[in-house]
This record gives sequence, structure tokens and C-alpha cells, in this order.
Amino acid sequence: MTSHAISTTVADRPGMMYGLTKVLAAHEADIKYVDIHQGDPHSEVYFEFTLTDSSVEAVLRDIRELPGVSRAGETPTFGKIYGKRIIVMGGGAQVGMVAMGAIAEADRHNIRGERISIDTIPLVGEHDLAAAVRATARLPRVKLLVLAGSLMGGEITAAVKEVRETGLRVISLNMAGSVPEAADLVVSDPVQAGVMAVMAVADTAKFDLMRQLKRRY
Amino acid sequence: MTSHAISTTVADRPGMMYGLTKVLAAHEADIKYVDIHQGDPHSEVYFEFTLTDSSVEAVLRDIRELPGVSRAGETPTFGKIYGKRIIVMGGGAQVGMVAMGAIAEADRHNIRGERISIDTIPLVGEHDLAAAVRATARLPRVKLLVLAGSLMGGEITAAVKEVRETGLRVISLNMAGSVPEAADLVVSDPVQAGVMAVMAVADTAKFDLMRQLKRRY
Repeated sequence: MTSHAISTTVADRPGMMYGLTKVLAAHEADIKYVDIHQGDPHSEVYFEFTLTDSSVEAVLRDIRELPGVSRAGETPTFGKIYGKRIIVMGGGAQVGMVAMGAIAEADRHNIRGERISIDTIPLVGEHDLAAAVRATARLPRVKLLVLAGSLMGGEITAAVKEVRETGLRVISLNMAGSVPEAADLVVSDPVQAGVMAVMAVADTAKFDLMRQLKRRY
Repeated sequence: MTSHAISTTVADRPGMMYGLTKVLAAHEADIKYVDIHQGDPHSEVYFEFTLTDSSVEAVLRDIRELPGVSRAGETPTFGKIYGKRIIVMGGGAQVGMVAMGAIAEADRHNIRGERISIDTIPLVGEHDLAAAVRATARLPRVKLLVLAGSLMGGEITAAVKEVRETGLRVISLNMAGSVPEAADLVVSDPVQAGVMAVMAVADTAKFDLMRQLKRRY
């Protein structure tokens, strides 16, 4: 089985995705990731997939014959470039401090060959935050979520429980509300929370923080 | 024309995307975004699309009839939740400071109804950075790139010129190398660079920073 990434330039009209996925299905490609970058009159569509029998050259040849396709070629995968993602969300002041710790620690691991990106959204309000927590489970390459705030509970706690069931790990700052109870790990210092988040997902880290289930720092 | 987002649970096997996009094509859905969250034996596939004549109920009904589909329903769009993205890349110390400024400023705009996320990758090396810069043009919802380092040039500069041609705006820290020459805006203070990045993409900002083309601060 071989992994590939291709990028195609196609006319921006309904049905193009159907044409592209029809070719991929004919080659029994297992599609792992799709990205659409819409433009007018042309859009870029990017696919990551694995092949068992077919060659990527054969896939590209068939795609280039589709009406509306103006270009198709191989490209490096996002996984190779952006790697694992840690998402930090909550109030701006605390999200910023967690991000500082996480970015500094990710730098140390990325220099040794890891690829860890830190993504953040400063966001307030129970409903908006709960929706953002639930959405992380649908985002690609997300390994861990850090909740950085002073008070989180209610619907956010319910969302944390849901995403943990899908396998996502959650670190919470030590804060008011029921979110810390629902998290894998609770950390008081936001910079340390960021550092620990990176240690938890890095293959280059020397030990597994998440074994210390439900510990508080 | 109406915008919709749906999430489906499907068997993890080749050909499922083809089946799903075939239904969407039959309803003349214009697909804007696709996300695959792979699991075993079931994967989640998420679509954002617009419809002109069909209803989302009709689309969901046809999708539920496909072999291998165990669930399909409407869901809020990522655009509503995560909104516009600013990507910060470069050396850890400087990426952290830019992120601090951008997160604090995004907080102020998000409270007033904007949705701006700050995504970062601490990364060094001409080749890796150039590849990451080129990849931003293929990532969804990215509005602006901030390059935070002390020395960037060569292949990175070539990549900056390429992504600017696709419409992406680029802010560079004032640094050694040829990247500042290729950027839209050059800023010396990393915190201010982050703040300005958010001001440049926020609809809630009072003026357009990018009009000050090629200015240095």
C-alpha cells in the first residue's frame, strides 16, 4: 500500500468532485483527506489517498482526461508538512499563554523531526465554545485539545465528554466549573499546560504524560 | 442558493466518497469543503455545499439509502465556528510572540461577532518552511500568513511570491534575508505584527491596513 497526495486544478462547477472521486474509486484509492480551495473560474482540489494495486501515474492520467480538469500532479502531503495539531481554545489572555508554552515546546520537537502545529481560537460563551469543542473531533489531524479559561461548564463539559469518547485527549486549565472534572489532565500554569500538551502528542517525547490520568498540576 | 453542512457516518472502504459525491452531484450541490475523519470500521465524512433547487432533506434522504452509510444529518459549518484563519510560521520564540499579539487582538474582534483563528507552526529550515508556505495556499479559510523569524530568503521568498499571486496576504517580521522585500507589510515588533494581522482580516476592524502597501513599521 502506498500513500500519495495529488493536487488538481478544475473548473468551479457542481459535479467536479463526483468526476474526480469516480476516477479514484475506479483505482480503488482509499481517500484519507480532501481539500477544496475555491476560486473563480478555477478551483484547486487536493486529495490524499492510499493505493494497493494502481499507480499514482495511472490515477493522474485518468484525472487529466476528465472534462473540466486543467492540471493534475503529485504534491507533498499536509501530514508531512503540518503534522499533528493541538487546538487551544478559550479566553484570549489564557489561550495566548498556553500557545506560548506549546509553540516553544513544539519548536524543540520539530527541530528533532516531529511536525506539531498549534492552532488556537479565542472564543467566549458556553454555546459557541461547546460547538467549537465538538467541531475539533471533525477537524483533520487533531490529537489534543486544551481548554484555557477561568470558568467553563454546562454544555462545554458535555462536549468535552463527547470528544473524549472519539479518542481526542483533553487538557484543562485548573478553573471554575465542571470542565476540569471531565478532562484527562488538569494544569494550573497555562505555559506548562501548553508544554505538557506538546509532550503528550510528540513521538520525540521521552514519556507518556497521559498515563498520569486525572492528575492535577 | 442555500448553504448547508452535513456529517455522515460511513463504512471505511474505497468508493464511499464516490457514492456520496454522486448523490451530491445528482442534486447539483456545489461542494465547498470536505473533511474525512477516519476510523475503523466507520469514518465520519463532513461536507459543506450550496444548493440551488434541491433541499438538504432530499440530499440526506438519498445519502441514507446508500450502502455503507449508517448515519447522515445536518451540522453547523466550520466557517461559522472557526472562521478565518491566520497562519504564523517560523522560529518558536518569535512565532510565540506573534501568536500572543494575534490571539489577544482576535479575542477583541471575536467578542464582537467575528470568527478568527490563529494557527501556528514552529518550523526551521529553508526547504521545510518553503513547503509550509506553499501549502498554506491549499489550506481552507486561510486569509493571511505571518512569517516570524530572524533570517528567511531563497526558496522561502519564491514561495511567498507564489502564494501572494493566489491572493494570500503576507506579513513579515523585519528580518535579514529577502522575505521582507516580498511581503505585503513588514513589522518589527512581533506582538504588533500579530495584532496587525488580525486587523487586516477582521471585518470588525475600522480600517484596511493592507492599503498601506509595502510600508514598514
